[in-house]
Amino acid sequence: MDINIIYIVDPVKGSAYSRNGLDIEEILKIISRKGNLEGHPDYKDVDSYEAICDVEVDVIVEVTPTNLVDGEPGYSHIKRALYEGKHVITTNKGPIALYYKELTRLADQKGLYLGFEGTVMSGTPLIKILRYGLLQDIERLRGILNGTTNFILTKMGEGYSFETALKEAQELGYAESDPTMDIDGYDLVAKAAILVNVITDDAVKPKDIFRMSLREYLNNRGYEGNLKYLVDLDFNNNIFAVIPKPLERTSSLVSVKGVNNGVEIETKSLGKSFIIGPGAGREETGYAILTDLKELITWAYS
Amino acid sequence: MDINIIYIVDPVKGSAYSRNGLDIEEILKIISRKGNLEGHPDYKDVDSYEAICDVEVDVIVEVTPTNLVDGEPGYSHIKRALYEGKHVITTNKGPIALYYKELTRLADQKGLYLGFEGTVMSGTPLIKILRYGLLQDIERLRGILNGTTNFILTKMGEGYSFETALKEAQELGYAESDPTMDIDGYDLVAKAAILVNVITDDAVKPKDIFRMSLREYLNNRGYEGNLKYLVDLDFNNNIFAVIPKPLERTSSLVSVKGVNNGVEIETKSLGKSFIIGPGAGREETGYAILTDLKELITWAYS
Repeated sequence: MDINIIYIVDPVKGSAYSRNGLDIEEILKIISRKGNLEGHPDYKDVDSYEAICDVEVDVIVEVTPTNLVDGEPGYSHIKRALYEGKHVITTNKGPIALYYKELTRLADQKGLYLGFEGTVMSGTPLIKILRYGLLQDIERLRGILNGTTNFILTKMGEGYSFETALKEAQELGYAESDPTMDIDGYDLVAKAAILVNVITDDAVKPKDIFRMSLREYLNNRGYEGNLKYLVDLDFNNNIFAVIPKPLERTSSLVSVKGVNNGVEIETKSLGKSFIIGPGAGREETGYAILTDLKELITWAYS
Repeated sequence: MDINIIYIVDPVKGSAYSRNGLDIEEILKIISRKGNLEGHPDYKDVDSYEAICDVEVDVIVEVTPTNLVDGEPGYSHIKRALYEGKHVITTNKGPIALYYKELTRLADQKGLYLGFEGTVMSGTPLIKILRYGLLQDIERLRGILNGTTNFILTKMGEGYSFETALKEAQELGYAESDPTMDIDGYDLVAKAAILVNVITDDAVKPKDIFRMSLREYLNNRGYEGNLKYLVDLDFNNNIFAVIPKPLERTSSLVSVKGVNNGVEIETKSLGKSFIIGPGAGREETGYAILTDLKELITWAYS
């Protein structure tokens, strides 16, 4: 893949621009040494929309933080990029969970690529499997798709208390200081909405997914063996839920431990199949972006 | 998908032809009742090459039996179809294991699709994951890819003898009356060659894969806990093998029981991911053909 990165737009660490392509290794070195790009010869105070609208740019990689209220600023970035005729790759769950149908329709109309492998299971290619590997006969999908809560539940299975396990997750950098996105299920609800939308090509919103907080469940009922915080999507009855539930001992999902993720997909003709792999991490999410780029290059430029 | 099947070529059960499209449900009914198509209004004594060379045909689905000596008749069917400008979908391991590079190059040169999802793990989308879902940084792949031997080893784990387990596999229709393809590893060697070729885009032959017979291993060493008949592909050292080996208890592959298949893929940036699902079966193999058709239609006709 011959890729030229000509813009980096980051309001915190500083932005950079070079028509001939930025030297990424050098920039990463400076960032890790100084924390920001000021003083670098390619440093430039550019705005997102300057990069998005530049006619020299073919692909926008949108990696702003997830916002599940209105999807901003990612939603406007992606929409504008597609209107400007740019392919888009994103790892931002907000715009895809909230505006899947609008954004995929817009990309289709414009003949553009919209990749979002990194929104669920990071680089483990679940989205590509759902889009290209399986037919539209999925009856049920159950998934362990939040690494932080799976880490906590794995630790609780080893005898730790919820509070101790959460603290360890925070110390290891898995859980945020305010862990409500993870342990109350908001992250899972966004991922559930993305998966329902990909599978049904419909416009389900996160608020349409039934959500039971893991924290509340544990407060009320306590831990029991093989308890997992599951995304459970029943396409026969159109019941979509995020719920804590003990797994059957024989399920391959039992082997999904710690920060790993896994899904069980049941199709009408194929029965059950499983995809298990990393669900988060910087390198793993970068991997997702690169597989989307590979797909885009294979299909759009061949 | 709007598909018109205009030829069926089967020298045993009889062939059929209809320019306007064959009525597949009716044909399947007649076959299950009478065993062959003679007397059906669309019955016609056609030759494979008549169908392959017909200008009205866009896609050839090649499902003749696997032959690991010279790949015939599948190899000549596929080659001729590509020369005639037809897309090809096959579930026949022989031509892909023996002539991967030649056939994929020919398809590329002609701008044609060559799908072979059904050659490994039937409908479980392993080939598509390797082709589109992952980058070229695979360091190791370990797989349980032969349902018959995995069924036998699962039964042996429950206390059955090899002979009893093999007999049950034969009674259930998993193992052939001459089971050497399965229990001596020839089926696995073909699948290993296909996977190495897909991953490295190279021309490895089945004879380049180290093969240890499961039957001989059991005769010499007997069964031990978590013994699996593994395809083990080490891309760092270019050592490719089919060998019986006990699994670590913690591996997600331990949950792959009975006729199921599973692979563990280790990439440089992503670590380990797992794909587990059905590995054989009529409907499952048909599913593979349909996912290839879906992929072909999505990309070639969009």
